[in-house]
Amino acid sequence: QSGDPEAGKDKIAACAACHGTDGMGTAPIYPNLAGQSATYLESAMKAYRDGKRGGGMSAIMAPQAQGLSDEDIADMSAYYASLEP
Amino acid sequence: QSGDPEAGKDKIAACAACHGTDGMGTAPIYPNLAGQSATYLESAMKAYRDGKRGGGMSAIMAPQAQGLSDEDIADMSAYYASLEP
Repeated sequence: QSGDPEAGKDKIAACAACHGTDGMGTAPIYPNLAGQSATYLESAMKAYRDGKRGGGMSAIMAPQAQGLSDEDIADMSAYYASLEP
Repeated sequence: QSGDPEAGKDKIAACAACHGTDGMGTAPIYPNLAGQSATYLESAMKAYRDGKRGGGMSAIMAPQAQGLSDEDIADMSAYYASLEP
């Protein structure tokens, strides 16, 4: 995990609408991210970005992930992983 | 959420190898499930079962989900959702 949680904090404006700034989903269909493994979060975001993860909320998540660099994803993942669930 | 966490407890033997009986991933690539939204967990499992969710650990998860009924998935999801993260 090479992400910077401080940098990630400034990159999660779009995420927060559904996943909260505190990493708690704002509705039951949105997973909680607080305290989740950063490694897993990176893997999930890359699967969305690369068009591999369908089903669920992928129609929303794939476009969200499209413009993100590996570093963006690492930082955002580190931020949510750093939060207390 | 119609799942029965008590019934789910008896159905998660296969899950626990990677996600723990306590819902904490046994390695960083495995997401924590404890306290996760049951609605989200059901959605994720159905996406694996229906072959829509690729990438990440889908090569392991898709076959795992294949034999599960909607009720199995609801029960297992309710179990992990009921745990303290």
